[in-house]
Amino acid sequence: MQRGFAPQEFEERLSRAQIMMAREGLDALLLTTEPDVRYFSGFLTRFWESPSRPWFLVVPAAGKPIAVIPSIGAALMEKTWIDDIRTWRAPDVDDDGVSLLANTLNDLGAKHVGTPTGHESHLRMPLGDWQKLQAALQGTVRDDARIVARLRAQKSEAEVAKIAHACAIAGRAFARVPEIASAGVPLSAVFRDFQRLCLEEGADWVPYLAGGAEKNGYADVISPASDTPLQLGDILMLDTGLVWDGYFCDFDRNFSMGEASSLVSAAHVKLIDAVEAAAGIARAGTTAAELFHAMDQIVTGGAGGSDAGRLGHGLGMQLTEGLSLIPQDHTVLRAGMVITLEPGIETENGKVLVHEEDILITEGTPRFLSPRSGPDMVQL
Amino acid sequence: MQRGFAPQEFEERLSRAQIMMAREGLDALLLTTEPDVRYFSGFLTRFWESPSRPWFLVVPAAGKPIAVIPSIGAALMEKTWIDDIRTWRAPDVDDDGVSLLANTLNDLGAKHVGTPTGHESHLRMPLGDWQKLQAALQGTVRDDARIVARLRAQKSEAEVAKIAHACAIAGRAFARVPEIASAGVPLSAVFRDFQRLCLEEGADWVPYLAGGAEKNGYADVISPASDTPLQLGDILMLDTGLVWDGYFCDFDRNFSMGEASSLVSAAHVKLIDAVEAAAGIARAGTTAAELFHAMDQIVTGGAGGSDAGRLGHGLGMQLTEGLSLIPQDHTVLRAGMVITLEPGIETENGKVLVHEEDILITEGTPRFLSPRSGPDMVQL
Repeated sequence: MQRGFAPQEFEERLSRAQIMMAREGLDALLLTTEPDVRYFSGFLTRFWESPSRPWFLVVPAAGKPIAVIPSIGAALMEKTWIDDIRTWRAPDVDDDGVSLLANTLNDLGAKHVGTPTGHESHLRMPLGDWQKLQAALQGTVRDDARIVARLRAQKSEAEVAKIAHACAIAGRAFARVPEIASAGVPLSAVFRDFQRLCLEEGADWVPYLAGGAEKNGYADVISPASDTPLQLGDILMLDTGLVWDGYFCDFDRNFSMGEASSLVSAAHVKLIDAVEAAAGIARAGTTAAELFHAMDQIVTGGAGGSDAGRLGHGLGMQLTEGLSLIPQDHTVLRAGMVITLEPGIETENGKVLVHEEDILITEGTPRFLSPRSGPDMVQL
Repeated sequence: MQRGFAPQEFEERLSRAQIMMAREGLDALLLTTEPDVRYFSGFLTRFWESPSRPWFLVVPAAGKPIAVIPSIGAALMEKTWIDDIRTWRAPDVDDDGVSLLANTLNDLGAKHVGTPTGHESHLRMPLGDWQKLQAALQGTVRDDARIVARLRAQKSEAEVAKIAHACAIAGRAFARVPEIASAGVPLSAVFRDFQRLCLEEGADWVPYLAGGAEKNGYADVISPASDTPLQLGDILMLDTGLVWDGYFCDFDRNFSMGEASSLVSAAHVKLIDAVEAAAGIARAGTTAAELFHAMDQIVTGGAGGSDAGRLGHGLGMQLTEGLSLIPQDHTVLRAGMVITLEPGIETENGKVLVHEEDILITEGTPRFLSPRSGPDMVQL
């Protein structure tokens, strides 16, 4: 697999953005988060883990994006397709890039600047500096009309290939779980070893791993691992978001420690049925809500939701991005969207079983990017 | 090592915060980021990797913090010391926790709400929702007077123990680098294998790894790994921020592929000298700027800075947090602060060598938490 993208990929992203910007009357986009900056630049680094420095990318109405970044990132940004790189020595106690950014936007004559302000976005710069920036701008900042989110939701073939590669890596790691999980092994050791397997199978890194192991299900799906040893009768769930070349997979697998109870076996079959029902109608033109209801009908009989809140979501440069499979979300699926199908079912008092697969939306039958699971759990 | 903290730890954090809040005239703190929420609650999960849901913690003027969170997190939050947990089914397209949060603050009668707005902070919620929240509040929101940053900067003994544990894990992983790095091995494989070693040695996860491998140094310190094979004459640098129980280490090591040139050997000796000079004066009462100058004198002869921007920083619940070792930062060190000493030196046209250690500030000689490196690079 080739890392990175051909320059045309970025040219197309930019050109689509600029068409949408013209339609919305926006003279520039201001981007501050890792995936948004990377989407238009190709700037890929784990250095965002450090919160100390802000990073900015300005997408003008015409011409290539302009990077306004700490000088420590200049060498790496120069390797991307970006030509105009403006730097300051961050951190700067007095002016941490605010003037440089304001000048950049003002020099463009930008009267209407868009930045993501909607669902699941945030502004990755200090709020104090945000206020200073607004005071220094000749124009005003408003919502980007979800231009960036809409563009990112529909993946190119090259992006899909990276997500599929990440999914294949995770699939091989899941297939090796019998090597690392058996009765008596602490869950924390399973978590560590599973991340090791992901790396061995080719992951660049493993930003996300969650799971649980209890009898007949687990109390939640976001807890870190305890040191409690696996026991016969437990259902072990591992849910990973590993990354290859900046793109995530996100799916889980359930394993039965010894033979599964009929309660849990039946629940797992229902989850697989729910995925099948959603996959059966998932194609360009279906809505997110329709996928929700297809699964909810099977897992709850149509109760309309649970505390987990959604039965799937978009996937790509982030572990979760874009649409949510909930009754309220009427986003129409388009070919090129990658989403997860993630039905959950309550097995007994406060315990759940969750299953997740990753699919690519097409004009016809969706393509499973994760290696589709059968109805029977793997027994450990 | 025991995971988590005794309840007294959180009681003390809260009590210190409330004393500072009273002094600043703040009726409540509003916290939105992973480390800030965790600092006062103990809520530890990798689920923050998903940007889709906001999470809020309110610290009132008196009484325990109140969690205002998506219902998917309730089971985990119930395991912490927090009693008052208010949830909504996120994502909610119409009202993603905004009303619940506004009601919580209004019910407290909070007229003056503080939230971090200064250096290296950000607001982890959509800007659109932030505007809605402000409109719904009876009080107003202003800067938290750096209360949270100041509290977090000074670590308890229990926190230091976790950082020291993370450092020891990384130290053992660095000692095993000869197992994984030799001429012909692609740098990307070294990165993958090094993360595997970190996990094998006990890391919960490895959020950060950067490095480089080129002749006589590397062009920057934030690039992801290329597939270029290691060659005799390269200097391999690996810089990791691994996590144990929510606390980071952050230090690097340089390795010479074969015998190092006298240029590089001399540069490495200077870096170790710089660390020694800084460590020699680092204690409660010294300023961040003084540590910068002690190192800068040795690595540049006193040029006053470089494009890397700083020669060290605070460390703890985040890879980097708090003070910066730069000429502008006159923060006075206090016992209990954990910082990195991270001098860099230019070896030749645009190439650098960087060395980093982690130390605990005390009233006397600092304690090295990373296993202090000698002047000679390890030869591979």
